Order: sequence, then structure tokens, then C-alpha cells
Amino acid sequence: MTTTPTAATPAAGPFAAAVSALIAPDERARRAADEHQLQLTKPPGSLGRLESIGAQLSAIAGVVPPPLPQPAAVAVFAGDHGVHAEGVTPWPQEVTGQMVANFAGGGAAINVFARLTGATVQVVDVGVATPVDASDGLLDRKVRPGTANLAAGPAMTSDEAVAALDVGAQVAADLVAAGHRCLITGDMGIANTTASAALIAAFTGRPAAEVTGRGTGIDDTTLDRKTAVVEEAARRVAARSPLEVLAEVGGLEIAALAGFIVGAAAARVPVIVDGVIAGAALLTASRLAPDCLGYAIPGHRSVEPGATAVLEALGLDPVIDLDLRLGEGTGACLALPLVEASARILREMATFDSAGVAQKDT
Amino acid sequence: MTTTPTAATPAAGPFAAAVSALIAPDERARRAADEHQLQLTKPPGSLGRLESIGAQLSAIAGVVPPPLPQPAAVAVFAGDHGVHAEGVTPWPQEVTGQMVANFAGGGAAINVFARLTGATVQVVDVGVATPVDASDGLLDRKVRPGTANLAAGPAMTSDEAVAALDVGAQVAADLVAAGHRCLITGDMGIANTTASAALIAAFTGRPAAEVTGRGTGIDDTTLDRKTAVVEEAARRVAARSPLEVLAEVGGLEIAALAGFIVGAAAARVPVIVDGVIAGAALLTASRLAPDCLGYAIPGHRSVEPGATAVLEALGLDPVIDLDLRLGEGTGACLALPLVEASARILREMATFDSAGVAQKDT
Repeated sequence: MTTTPTAATPAAGPFAAAVSALIAPDERARRAADEHQLQLTKPPGSLGRLESIGAQLSAIAGVVPPPLPQPAAVAVFAGDHGVHAEGVTPWPQEVTGQMVANFAGGGAAINVFARLTGATVQVVDVGVATPVDASDGLLDRKVRPGTANLAAGPAMTSDEAVAALDVGAQVAADLVAAGHRCLITGDMGIANTTASAALIAAFTGRPAAEVTGRGTGIDDTTLDRKTAVVEEAARRVAARSPLEVLAEVGGLEIAALAGFIVGAAAARVPVIVDGVIAGAALLTASRLAPDCLGYAIPGHRSVEPGATAVLEALGLDPVIDLDLRLGEGTGACLALPLVEASARILREMATFDSAGVAQKDT
Repeated sequence: MTTTPTAATPAAGPFAAAVSALIAPDERARRAADEHQLQLTKPPGSLGRLESIGAQLSAIAGVVPPPLPQPAAVAVFAGDHGVHAEGVTPWPQEVTGQMVANFAGGGAAINVFARLTGATVQVVDVGVATPVDASDGLLDRKVRPGTANLAAGPAMTSDEAVAALDVGAQVAADLVAAGHRCLITGDMGIANTTASAALIAAFTGRPAAEVTGRGTGIDDTTLDRKTAVVEEAARRVAARSPLEVLAEVGGLEIAALAGFIVGAAAARVPVIVDGVIAGAALLTASRLAPDCLGYAIPGHRSVEPGATAVLEALGLDPVIDLDLRLGEGTGACLALPLVEASARILREMATFDSAGVAQKDT
């Protein structure tokens, strides 16, 4: 990996290094995977979306069959949001730090799903507002204790946004260096659907009302207030650079996730992307380093409308669709066995020739 | 389990025994599961469909939390179809037996997915037309070597249909007795989407053109021919009893699958149902023993239009939707980790009290 900065990257840290190292997936390997799948003992195309994911994994690794996406790691980036002061959620801000402790104790939904799927959970404090107990495995990478209120001014400075991008890119590089062959995005941050909706409205140009949802579950009055905050924030950053948009209306964990996605792509490892928070990060990452998109697998379709806005804007089709809206990386983690299935098809299935099975009359 | 036959069951074999033993799931346990899920460290309802599956598993077992759906077993029932003679598929009939050998060799898609998810594969010859080599683990339960041509007369006699129902019910009982806590439907049979479409048209009353699909991949001419066969078959059996419909236009593996579903339900074990073939079997089973429906989890939405017709007729929402159309139990097997996730949520997640996490302001 080189550390030469490029014009698109404002600093020489891990994020800039990842952007420099990034190359597009290998289309020759994708075509070879598609051709191999025609020889397997099944009607052509009958494994549907799994076949395209298998081909994508081949393109990412540049080889057919692709390596298994194991071991996998979920990085849960936690940060708080000054926009909480606007009354956009009924949950107290302290819950962010309390949930970080819950992750450390293994009692959250993401812990349950990670145990099921064999993934490691890495919790990263990139900006929790309250003090967090140091615990086994928690990475203290706090850039600042929560963002400022994005409704009243910039959520953070551009330097802070770059620092958070660097945290994410470095976590990705470290997890891959430790042997992980698939990364999964996770997030925790009370009020982070507001910042996500602002980023999505800004980057897609869609009206705030179309991309702002009920998050953890809010009433109509709160939704109206939240939508107004998103609308004004998106209006304010129109025509600004992607990094400026991220700093003005984003979040520390969202910036870290954008860095994490680019870091995974630079290491040529697939990254399974969760719901609306991760979607906002993916959209941001795609503006900062477009080639990262080929390494992203959309894990699921969140109930949150902004998530669908991201999928549509990027032309992505999610792996699962189970009406989830929890975050933490839960939907992406649940997609891992299906992504692994697509790799195993290419690695393990018999061909018509090897199994002595007749093909259809043509 | 009692062996007393009832009016709904025409014989005193394993299927009749299962129908007698069948009781509806425990609604008290379902409500208790729903209440417990409100105490877990997540916004209420935020795990969407997984919460309803967890509650269903609780109702099936009559206890909260429910047992894990492990170990699981996929039973792949294989049978041939006389309607192959009508030219409804470009695949030679010999492929059914060749794929049975492929299952034994571990090279088929269902083998790959079963290894991934930890499920056992049990292949059952209930009616393959060609000789099948005895191999480790293959159960020879052949009722007859393929059905007769359903376009020219009854596919089988009612006694043969009952014999196939008995095979399925007994396989389910044996797998549960061997310790399996989740059963998964699998199927193999060239031309079986034609018989499935005929059953679905007959039981739902929908036009043949709406429930007949391209199966393994057929051209327009073949689809027209197949649709005409389905239309005439469904017309012929209008107003007949469910067992007569099954015998007239069904298939041996479809009958066995219907028995298997009822057998799983009688043993109070969840049964994950695959695509259109298993959907036709589930529809048949629901007419023969309606209480079995509460034990069925629709694993996926097949591309085949008849599969969606079944889901709509029974008011079911599939777990995954990945444009699969392979059969063998592949879609249902891929749903297993998600079903397991729903059980683990109830078994492993911390509550707000236990984790010291604040709840939202109300």
C-alpha cells in the first residue's frame, strides 16, 4: 500500500493511503465466474442473486473460485450527535455509551448474530459523548465526544471528518492484516438516522420527506421536526464538496464507516453494508472514492426510507429484506451466510461432466 | 403418538397417525415471546420479521425461549413424472436419477448449502423412474417408478398417493426421533413444476397461465404447451377431494412432501418449506390437515409464479427472496441461519434491565 496522497484526498493518513491503493474489481474474473457457473449441476441462472454475488466475490479477489468470506469481522463504530438537542429522537443520548457496554458484554443483537455466523465484533469509539469504560476489545479512537448540532452549524470540522475517515480506514486495514477476509459495517449512535438522512438528501438531491424515517420509532410530531432539520441541513450544503458535506451534516461514526468501506476495498476484501447509516456512509464513500462501490455488498433493505434511496441511487439490490431497522450491523451480519453460500457454490459444486449429469436438449 | 385414524385420513399408516397427533401451535407461548421481545435491548419491533419467526418457534415448541432449530435435516424426496412425455421440459428424465447420485456424492447445490448451515441431507427415492444405485444414506421408499402421465389420466391411484404421504410422514417422524429439531423440504423430479402448477391451479382456483412458469428454463412454445396441460388437468379435478386431486394431478415426491410437512407438525418441530414444489405440497397438506400450517416457515420466494400464488393463498411471507428457482430445498436451507437467528434473539439477547440500558422517553 502506498501513502502518496491524491488530489481527492486532503491528507496523507490511512484514508488517503486507501484511496491511492484502490483499484476497480477484476472484470475478467467476474466473467470467468459467470462462465463456470454455467457448467455447474443446476439449470443456468437458477441460483439467481447468489450467482451475481459469487461473480462479484471473484471480481473482488481477482480469482475463480473466490476465497471464502471467512473469517469475517463486524466493526461497530459508535458516535454521538449534537443534533440530539433538536428533539429528533425519544431516546436519551446516554444510550449510545450504554449500548457500547452492552456490545462489550455480548448481549446486543449484533453479538448474537456474530456468534451465529462466526464473525468477530470490533467496537470502536470514534465519538461517544459520555465516558465509556475501557473494556476488552473496545478500541478508543475518539475524535471528539460527539458532533456539534448540525442544525445550528457544522457538525464537525473537515479535519475532524478526515480524522474519522482515517480511523475507519485504519480499522479496516488492521482487521485485514489480522486475517479477516470479509468486513461488515456496524454502527451505534442515538440520532444518527437524522445525520444519515441529511447526507442522503444532500447527495441524492431527493426531498427530505422522502429520505427521513422514523428511525428507532418516533411519533408524527417528532418526524415532522426531524424532517425539517434534514431539509434545512441538506439545503445548506448544496453544491459543497463531498468532504464538506460530510463534515457539515454527517457524523463521526458515519465518516469512520466511509473510511472503513474504502479501506476494505483498498485491501480487496468484500464489505457487507448494513442499513441506512451504513448506506449514508457508502454514498459518501462513493463520492470520495468511486471504485470502492464494486467491493460493497448491500446486506439488507432497512425499513428506513433513506436506505432504499441509497440502494436506488447506487443501483444496488440488497441480499435480505426482513423489515429490520436496528442498525449495529445486524442486517449485514445476517447476510454473511448467504454471501458465503455464493462463494461455496463456485468452490464446491460438481459440474455436469464431473457428476455425469445430462444437460438439457438445446 | 396415537395411530387412531380419523375421518380425514383414508388409512391407518404414518400419515394418518400424524394427522391424529396434530395440534395447533401454542398461542400463549407466541404472546409470551412477543412480550419478552419488548424487553430486549433494541427498539420495539426493530428486528421485523425475525421477531415474528421467533414467536412462531415459541408457539411451535410451546415454550419461551424456543429451542434452537438445530440439528436440522433436509429431506430430498425424488420422483419422476409421466407428464414428461408431453414435452413440458427440455431436460431428459434420466436427470432425476443422475441428480440423486449427485446428492449422494455431495456435489449438488443442496449439499453445499447443507454443509454451510450444518444440516444433514437425507435423500429419499419415492418414485424415480430409472434404477438408482443403492448408496450410503439413500432411502429406497419407491412407491412406483414415476407417475403416469397426468395429461392422459390419473398420475397415480389414491392408494399410491397415501403410500407416498406415509413415506413422508414416516421420514419426518424418524428424523425427529433421531434428534433433529428442524426439518427442511427438498425435492428432485424432472417435470415436477408441471404437476405442482396443476395442484396449485386446482387448489387456488387461479388460471393456469398465472401459476405456470418456466421451471428450469423453457422457451415460449414449451411454456404454452405446459400451460395447456396444467389448465386441462386443473379443470378435470375441479370439485374433487384433496386426496383425489393429489392422486390425479400430483406427484410422488409432492405427496411425500405433504406427508413430511404434516409429520413435522405432528412432532411439533418447525418445517422450513422451499419453493414451488414444496409450496404445492404445503397447499395440499393444508387441505388434508389445516393445523400443519402453523408449523411451516416459508423459506423463500421462488421465481416460479406458482410459488407466489401459494404464498398469497396461504397468507405467508417468505424469509428470503433471491430469485432462486433451483429446488432441491436450496432456498429453504439458506433460510435456516435466519430462522436460527430468530431463536437466538429470544435465547441470548440482554434485556434493558440486565444490561443497564435506558429506554426511550414515553
